[in-house]
Amino acid sequence: MFKCDLKRMSEKIHTFSKFGDAGNGGITRYSLSAEDIQARDYFVDRMKAIGAIIETDDMANIYATIPGSDPGAKRIVMASHTDSVKNGGNYDGILGVMGAMESLETVATEKIPHKHPLTAMIWTNEEGSLYPPALLGSGVICYDYLPEAIAKNFKPEEKMQSKSVLDRKTTFGSQLGKFKYKGDRKNRINPDDYKCMFEMHIEQGPILEDAGNVIGVVDCVLGMFNYRVSFRGQSAHAGTFPMKNRKDALYAAAKALCYLHEEIDKLGYEDLVYTTGELLIHPCVHTVIPDFVEFSLDVRHESCDVRRQVLDIVKSLPEKDWAGCKCEIKEAWKRDTVYWDKKMVGYVEEAVKEMGVQYQYIHSGAGHDAQFASYMMPTTMIFVVSKGGLSHCEPEFTSDEDCTTAATVLLNAVLKADAE
Amino acid sequence: MFKCDLKRMSEKIHTFSKFGDAGNGGITRYSLSAEDIQARDYFVDRMKAIGAIIETDDMANIYATIPGSDPGAKRIVMASHTDSVKNGGNYDGILGVMGAMESLETVATEKIPHKHPLTAMIWTNEEGSLYPPALLGSGVICYDYLPEAIAKNFKPEEKMQSKSVLDRKTTFGSQLGKFKYKGDRKNRINPDDYKCMFEMHIEQGPILEDAGNVIGVVDCVLGMFNYRVSFRGQSAHAGTFPMKNRKDALYAAAKALCYLHEEIDKLGYEDLVYTTGELLIHPCVHTVIPDFVEFSLDVRHESCDVRRQVLDIVKSLPEKDWAGCKCEIKEAWKRDTVYWDKKMVGYVEEAVKEMGVQYQYIHSGAGHDAQFASYMMPTTMIFVVSKGGLSHCEPEFTSDEDCTTAATVLLNAVLKADAE
Repeated sequence: MFKCDLKRMSEKIHTFSKFGDAGNGGITRYSLSAEDIQARDYFVDRMKAIGAIIETDDMANIYATIPGSDPGAKRIVMASHTDSVKNGGNYDGILGVMGAMESLETVATEKIPHKHPLTAMIWTNEEGSLYPPALLGSGVICYDYLPEAIAKNFKPEEKMQSKSVLDRKTTFGSQLGKFKYKGDRKNRINPDDYKCMFEMHIEQGPILEDAGNVIGVVDCVLGMFNYRVSFRGQSAHAGTFPMKNRKDALYAAAKALCYLHEEIDKLGYEDLVYTTGELLIHPCVHTVIPDFVEFSLDVRHESCDVRRQVLDIVKSLPEKDWAGCKCEIKEAWKRDTVYWDKKMVGYVEEAVKEMGVQYQYIHSGAGHDAQFASYMMPTTMIFVVSKGGLSHCEPEFTSDEDCTTAATVLLNAVLKADAE
Repeated sequence: MFKCDLKRMSEKIHTFSKFGDAGNGGITRYSLSAEDIQARDYFVDRMKAIGAIIETDDMANIYATIPGSDPGAKRIVMASHTDSVKNGGNYDGILGVMGAMESLETVATEKIPHKHPLTAMIWTNEEGSLYPPALLGSGVICYDYLPEAIAKNFKPEEKMQSKSVLDRKTTFGSQLGKFKYKGDRKNRINPDDYKCMFEMHIEQGPILEDAGNVIGVVDCVLGMFNYRVSFRGQSAHAGTFPMKNRKDALYAAAKALCYLHEEIDKLGYEDLVYTTGELLIHPCVHTVIPDFVEFSLDVRHESCDVRRQVLDIVKSLPEKDWAGCKCEIKEAWKRDTVYWDKKMVGYVEEAVKEMGVQYQYIHSGAGHDAQFASYMMPTTMIFVVSKGGLSHCEPEFTSDEDCTTAATVLLNAVLKADAE
């Protein structure tokens, strides 16, 4: 068993936290931004320092590779992303990059024997915060391997036209065209040259912490569906329109939200999660009865059958009376549960066990680039505990010690795959 | 009894509908805009054509006055506004201006004898759509006469700094400074030179239509209060955060909205109206549990006691559990019921009775410049039926015939005040 270095890991955690520092511990580091370049430059400098070869592909994904003893062996890749959401934290994404760097630095420093070339990789635009959607880079790169229902959302030509949410003008493609790290299509990750992929990430939930565990051996990414639920009523003046004549779209939406919570909770599945995070209201003036409200509904569970039971409840909405408003529902997005490669999950568990670290099996509720990569090659993920389960926000935190432990798990799992 | 002219009224309705035409019958005519100048130019041209003297004050309110037979008599004023909300209709505000114009045109054309000078007046920025708040112009002009609780919201120096909702930069004061119709402070309406004020307006509600009436004899503007109700929870990832750990601010707000409807409806007051028109949500991302939601609550009823009963319900909110979120309430605005001058209300009723038009007594649920003017001089309002009760929107409509009927009521009520 080989161990990563706490001091070296702390140095990376501290340094990356400066690139996009938004104050109060927050990080804003959009993909393709100046801050993203700072982070990538630091990655490249450190990887060059251990003799890694740097390659970039046409989506500006970066690959830092150290050779193995077998010149004909495929690469083993550890991948994550440098970009963040607006005022996110210093761990989501970047920790996976640091873990990959730390693994290679440990291999190089300790001269750990290995057969396969080992690659630390940065995916472009995982968060999709500036150029939606999320997983844009991996969606485009893995496009030919994706199931049709997913691929339709990642058509490369369309994604190049994705507009900046800040100015609604600059496109992802135009920004990529002048980006320092745009490279050659021939360098794209592919199943002929790469054997398998690991992604290390913070949990972004409180399950590990609540159970007193440090590491989560991830077995799948939860299946999910995302619906838009809308209500059309009639706007009128707040002071002049009698209650009995109203068709208040916000009251309709509030009733429907309460109904959804009641009915879905009745199903009794503890590990089911559902969320309304977005709500649009028109005209949103305090003296006008709202005539239109639309909200999102995000539902996630491993079991397809459980998801179908929730969907039945959602589908019953338009048949009911919601304060006289017309209710419509529309599917926005869905995916089946993606299971990681069993052998690779086994390597991760073996590594943790050997280390004697507290761990458990866990599902990933969030989406990650690894889920798209898994259609291309054997893939798995490693989670590390998140303080309070908080993520995408200033208080996002994992201790330097736990980050180093996770890097050690990553390194040893990679070496097990290498020894296969 | 004198009658206004349908053809002349139709001409005005048709012409004003071009100034700020937003398509589909909608009108966008912000105060101090180019479209507002078009409307004011037309007003001035027509009033000059009947020999009216045009005056403007430092808030760009315009006064068109025809003399009466008694040179020492105070003026009787008919006032309303030319500005609209965004994509509003062709009747709110502007109909009162047309009614005032039509009354003066009828007096001039038919050479109707009258003692007092008669004035048609345009208030600046009633809607406050571009430069909030509503009633900005009348609030500033009537400032010295307003009860302290209301005056504090209309401090002239503050109002001059009101920022455009479009660019968040241009101020009302800077725009007013270069506005064509900015005039002299000495021309301001005041109780020494003006005897009383009439304002004619569409009902903006369905009460007259439902009862088969054309004219509403308005007796008061309803008392109201406006609260902000907020919920603070904890944001977290939609896919990774178990339901039992959540503090979902939107779910909290939805539950509270349903609770408010249930509890307020239990009070059983048919003529009570309450509205949540505005709702803010943070961060409003479909994959993130909302950590903050704030909504408005607008409550209106004539009786102070009824409003207090509703307020007791609102005040009980922070004591209850709302999905683990912290609830706070804050008063944003309130006003007592403003009763119109009884003698003037009587003139309006006499006029309608003499005309044999279907009418009823009615409260004004909406606020109007007249309510501020009423602290300065005897004031009243006349309502005319609104199709479907719709207002501030494209389908806002009152027939040319009903508009002319309302103008006739206005004219005859004014002549009764003149004969006093």
